[in-house]
Amino acid sequence: VISTKKEWNVTANLPVAFKVKMTDNVLEPTNYSLIEYGQTGRGARRLVIVDSAVFFGREKAIKSYFDFHNIETKIVPIDMSEDKKNLEHLLYILEIMENFGILRRSEPLICIGGGVLLDMCGLAANLYRRGVPHIKVPTTLLAIVDASVGVKTSINHFCRRNRLGSYYPPVAAYLDRTFLDTLPKEEIVSAMGEIFKMAVIKNAKLFELLETDAAELMQQNFLLDGPAESVISESINDMIVELAPNLWETDLERIVDFGHSFSPMLEMKSLEDSTVPSLSHGEAVSIDVVFSSCLAHHRGLIPKSELERIVDLSFVMQLPTYHPYFTNYLLLWESLIDTTRHRDGKQNLPIPAVSIGNSIFLNDIKLEDVKETIKLYVQMTGKKQK
Amino acid sequence: VISTKKEWNVTANLPVAFKVKMTDNVLEPTNYSLIEYGQTGRGARRLVIVDSAVFFGREKAIKSYFDFHNIETKIVPIDMSEDKKNLEHLLYILEIMENFGILRRSEPLICIGGGVLLDMCGLAANLYRRGVPHIKVPTTLLAIVDASVGVKTSINHFCRRNRLGSYYPPVAAYLDRTFLDTLPKEEIVSAMGEIFKMAVIKNAKLFELLETDAAELMQQNFLLDGPAESVISESINDMIVELAPNLWETDLERIVDFGHSFSPMLEMKSLEDSTVPSLSHGEAVSIDVVFSSCLAHHRGLIPKSELERIVDLSFVMQLPTYHPYFTNYLLLWESLIDTTRHRDGKQNLPIPAVSIGNSIFLNDIKLEDVKETIKLYVQMTGKKQK
Repeated sequence: VISTKKEWNVTANLPVAFKVKMTDNVLEPTNYSLIEYGQTGRGARRLVIVDSAVFFGREKAIKSYFDFHNIETKIVPIDMSEDKKNLEHLLYILEIMENFGILRRSEPLICIGGGVLLDMCGLAANLYRRGVPHIKVPTTLLAIVDASVGVKTSINHFCRRNRLGSYYPPVAAYLDRTFLDTLPKEEIVSAMGEIFKMAVIKNAKLFELLETDAAELMQQNFLLDGPAESVISESINDMIVELAPNLWETDLERIVDFGHSFSPMLEMKSLEDSTVPSLSHGEAVSIDVVFSSCLAHHRGLIPKSELERIVDLSFVMQLPTYHPYFTNYLLLWESLIDTTRHRDGKQNLPIPAVSIGNSIFLNDIKLEDVKETIKLYVQMTGKKQK
Repeated sequence: VISTKKEWNVTANLPVAFKVKMTDNVLEPTNYSLIEYGQTGRGARRLVIVDSAVFFGREKAIKSYFDFHNIETKIVPIDMSEDKKNLEHLLYILEIMENFGILRRSEPLICIGGGVLLDMCGLAANLYRRGVPHIKVPTTLLAIVDASVGVKTSINHFCRRNRLGSYYPPVAAYLDRTFLDTLPKEEIVSAMGEIFKMAVIKNAKLFELLETDAAELMQQNFLLDGPAESVISESINDMIVELAPNLWETDLERIVDFGHSFSPMLEMKSLEDSTVPSLSHGEAVSIDVVFSSCLAHHRGLIPKSELERIVDLSFVMQLPTYHPYFTNYLLLWESLIDTTRHRDGKQNLPIPAVSIGNSIFLNDIKLEDVKETIKLYVQMTGKKQK
């Protein structure tokens, strides 16, 4: 008989699974991580997109690795920085993929670089033929503890940070600390922002570990075996615990958004404003953490002693705490409004409560709160700054 | 104790659910379909993107609908056609969304138009802030039976059809046949290509229904109540049965790819080549269906009598069967190679077998098969053409 059905409910489940693995020396031929996924053997090929800064000095190692495994490889170095995280560069990556003729399933795109490169390559992998697999190899500390774990892809657009993007998981992320040996100090500092955030909002144990070891870790570029591994492992563990049940952000109350409430717009703005210091992502996050912690104290959520520990640790971690934008209530308010729109009309502001490592969400912040918090913020950070 | 974990397996499931509903007169205020999802009441807003061709004459109806429901609405008509399915127009749609300041969850983008508009708006909805909800209202027969059911979004790029895109489900698709009353005949013909495809490869019952009623349906622009509803219901039912378990195309053996093996590249190419007739999507599909059916007979998979029924029905449905590109073995072979790349290195060619409504997949088609099939194809269609 002929169908007379007029309504259908289409339901499906997209299963997602990917591996995050700490493994040093991924470019050693005896380390099989990079070829764990995809075709090997006769005819096997890989497209490798690598940050120019990382490529320099490792050109031979990358080539040798794939030669050793008899895999034909096209290696493309790309200059990357936050201001290149745009449509033009996304299209350039897509064109490289088109020219390579990458297969839909069996030739995972290998992406070696910092967060900017990983975010953009993830979006390119998502869009090309509606999705090809990709592997992330973060080469900065920030990317190791942050970009490698999530599934967010993006570019900046309409002068807004990450305005266009998607959720698109890699097949695997391999975390290799040996890339950090040549990492500039400011990049370490930037990563410390995210680690600091996680410690304050969720992990008192990590906070204490940092109080003890952060100074030495900074000096050693995270190459110190015991504590560096512990800090990375704790940070990633927290990220996975928070992100895995909420990969597509169906829940807009996310504690990992701590430090990202006032900062996104201010970070972007600082890059175009020559009258104030430019903020890296980690710097912007850490200042937001301090400011939000001041807000927590202003609202009576944490005692002064906890706020002081937070500010003190930020100094030990060589994180900036003061920035003129965070004393401008109009700017801060505008940022919060934009963030609220991003959280579907709710503030959902994660904020420490009771003590370090614990949090609640606020939805009733008024302009007056911001103004009052600025006074406390200047008092807590302004002197130390000068 | 401090974590020493070094490997994590992140697993998650993205649940997807959306409704496909045949409901006439969606613009009647008493039809609540269009506001079934999203915020209503005070402050409720909607952004409506509508094909200019549909907008013309319905401007008032669209405005009145939302006024009646006290929803503040921005209605943006956009000129749409296959050659505008590009990056430039995608960015234009994104800019409209940015200027509207669409919320992340509670203001579903309402997209009213044909497949091109729905594919592009779907991609824009996917990319804006990593995804806002959208509702599809297909206004062409092709979009009703095809684009409305799937979750594919796309734009053409690198001179390739749908080269960039994603899988992104709408929250709902509402199918309203009353949009068809002003639809040009060639649009009906184009849709017949996909319906014809489904009948040949999967649904013998639908095939027989078309043998009986297609001529009259064509004359009435599918407004004939009984048979038109049955044909649409059967087609959509088949699509959902095939697509729902494979929304993300993890399985690359897809019978809905029938008619899309040789045609994609040829359709694109025909638009830029003034020496041959341009092919609409449905036309390209139906010619591919006939050609592939000839291939099936050449390979001994279906008897001549079934092939003749297929060719005969294509004439009744006013579908073109002959095109010079389908006699050029080099072009056909190049198309098949490109399709094979899209199917991760396998031909996975769905083809009728035994009888109409049944199929198998082939992976061993040689250039010689294509050459031999051309002879049969010319014999079956060439005479009738002239």
